[in-house]
Formats: sequence, structure tokens, C-alpha cells
Amino acid sequence: MRIGVLGSGVVGQTIGSKLISLGHEVMMGSRDAANPTAITWAKKEGQRASFGTFANAAAFAELIFNCTLGSASLAALGHAGAENLEGKILIDTANPLDYSSEIWTLTVSNTDSLGEQIQRAFPRARVVKSLNTMNCNVMVEPGKLAERTDVFVSGNDTEAKAVVISILRDWFGWKSVVDLGNIVTSRGVEMYVVMWQTLRRWTSSHRFNIKVVT
Amino acid sequence: MRIGVLGSGVVGQTIGSKLISLGHEVMMGSRDAANPTAITWAKKEGQRASFGTFANAAAFAELIFNCTLGSASLAALGHAGAENLEGKILIDTANPLDYSSEIWTLTVSNTDSLGEQIQRAFPRARVVKSLNTMNCNVMVEPGKLAERTDVFVSGNDTEAKAVVISILRDWFGWKSVVDLGNIVTSRGVEMYVVMWQTLRRWTSSHRFNIKVVT
Repeated sequence: MRIGVLGSGVVGQTIGSKLISLGHEVMMGSRDAANPTAITWAKKEGQRASFGTFANAAAFAELIFNCTLGSASLAALGHAGAENLEGKILIDTANPLDYSSEIWTLTVSNTDSLGEQIQRAFPRARVVKSLNTMNCNVMVEPGKLAERTDVFVSGNDTEAKAVVISILRDWFGWKSVVDLGNIVTSRGVEMYVVMWQTLRRWTSSHRFNIKVVT
Repeated sequence: MRIGVLGSGVVGQTIGSKLISLGHEVMMGSRDAANPTAITWAKKEGQRASFGTFANAAAFAELIFNCTLGSASLAALGHAGAENLEGKILIDTANPLDYSSEIWTLTVSNTDSLGEQIQRAFPRARVVKSLNTMNCNVMVEPGKLAERTDVFVSGNDTEAKAVVISILRDWFGWKSVVDLGNIVTSRGVEMYVVMWQTLRRWTSSHRFNIKVVT
């Protein structure tokens, strides 16, 4: 499949490399066409990897991952262009975090969320919030944790969620995918990330996740 | 031990009854001295149970549980009186929830929390945020879930947290208690409650909790 990964940070690189390893064609999108990190990544990953602007990557893609910083996601998707997102599944992994102080805060929360903002701004994109509740190494290798843990999906488009659930299971190895409901449920998973930061300190590691037990 | 339980709702009743069953003396505090629910509860629980105002319960107590609605907690603790809270451990189980719409929101979050507000308002109380991340039945019977799950504590007073950790383990049966750090970490556990609501829908039950897996 042709996949666009928006964002050249560690999340975009990790997801991009995983998708390449599965045999997909991946274009990494950045604000600048010649982003040095994206160029280095594409060179390392070989012929199925490419790079370009956000618009190049979105136009190229059948499926899109938003791996930009949450505080920059709406602008990045604006550069990608509504016409290049239309009808496509957009997996939103971003969190609207303000990292400027030691204790993270969210730039949108409680009565709204980044997932909702993206779906409202791009009503013809099929937005599925997912993978934002864990470090990127856990995103693509959940089996390395000591036990089965949970990944969550939120979105208004049931068919799009079904596709994303298959991707999470079959490509990334998630054994338990929890469908929380419509895109409004993005609020909960985004607000959890403030707790995630405190858990990260407690575990002294990025490699952890939560499991729902009944 | 003489314990004050502030709040006569289902959380206060469940914790109060658990404490009675363990042999403690419990006074349930309410806004009104003759709260009908508190009277009924005390009658059912027998001679070690009593009821009174928030101030009566706080004055009586060596240890206090805040089980009031989060939106009413600061007022309730004001009625309890700073002099009756001074030097005492105050276990804050409340969440600052606005239940007025289908999707819960928080009345304070992100840059502040109820736990912090209480500690600031009553600087000589030894506030420990805990037990706010699960239903009250799970609070007092964590062993009924299929697996070991986690309960969290947040607070500035290390000795008070050590006491609360012992209470959670020895009285309530928690096998894993996670010390998240100072009272600022109340933000994360309170914000998680928005996610808890979505998980409650998914599980179709109040009886669940999360486990941190590394």
C-alpha cells in the first residue's frame, strides 16, 4: 500500500520504518520538501521510502498517519491540503502537548480534543485517533511488553475504524484493540497522556502501556 | 481507628462500610447533621458507625476520607474546618466532574487539579490523592478483578503517603500501589477519569481497572 507519514520526528520515523519493513511504500511528509531528517530516513530505508512536502505525501498516499506534533498538526494538515485527505483514512497519533514546562499540559482538552478538531477541519477525511497513548516503540512492537496491553481507537467512520483495527492487529501485532466510540472519545485518550507522563517517571522507562482488566 | 468519611453518597457508604467491617469507628459527615442517608447507613452498620456534620466527622477523626462530589469538595472541607483537618491525613477520592452533559468534563484540569486545590486551601492537612481512578466497589475489593491492577497515590507528605499505602494494602487488599509523586500528579489521575468514562461504556460495567505493564 502507498502510505503517507506526516512528520519526520521519532514517531514518524518509527512508524515509517515499520511500514517499510512490512513491504509498503512510504512517503514521509514534512513542511519543507528537503527536510534533512526525512532525506536521511529515506536513504536508510531504501527504494520503497521517499520524502516530500506534507502535500506530496498526502497526495501520494492511500492511507495517512499523522505523526506531527499535536500543537502543529492542524497547520501541517492544512499544508497537506483537504483535497489530498478527502476520502482517505487518517490515523491521528498526535497529542496536543505543551512541553514548555516540566509538567506537560494540553493545548486543547476537556471540552474538545485534537482528534475532534482535525475531523471538524477536514470533514471528508476519515479520522481515526489511535496509538497516541504509548511511546512509538510500543506502538509498533506491543509484543515486547511482558503482557498483552490495550490500544484504543476513536472515530466517527465505522468502516475506517475496522480497517485501522485490522492494521493494528495484522501489521503492528496488537492483540487487543479497544473501540472507544466516536471521535469525541479522543478527549479521554488525549487527557490520559498527562497521566502517562507521571507513569513514565514511575517506570523510569518509555516502554510501558496499560491493560484494562475486568 | 477513628475515621471520618465526608460524603454520604455511594462512595462514602462503600468505604465507610468497609472500614466498619475492619473494626474501625466511622463517623459519616454531611452538610446537614441529620442527613437521612447517613442516618440509615449508621443504623445499618451498628454501634461503631455514627453520623454528623462535616465538622463533627472531621473533629472526631484521626484519618479522613473525602468522598464528596468533587465539585462540592472545597465547600465541604470548608464546613469541616481547617482546624479539624490540621495535621491529619486526608485521603481525597473525589473527581471534579461536571455530569451535566452526556460526556463528562472536569471543572478543573490541565493546569491545576482538585487535589492541588485542596492542599492549597488546607496547607496543614496531609492530602493524599488516591482511589479516584476506579468505581467504589473496586476501591475496597480490588481482588475481585481477574488480575492484579494498580491504584495510585499523589501527595507532598511522604510519611502520609506511606500510611496511605499501608492502608490500601492491608485494609483494602491492593497488591500494587503506585506512588506517582507530589500532589501535582493529581492532574493526571483526575484527567484519566474522562477516559475511564469511555472505558466504562466499552466494558458495560463499573467493575474494571487498569494495570500498568512494562
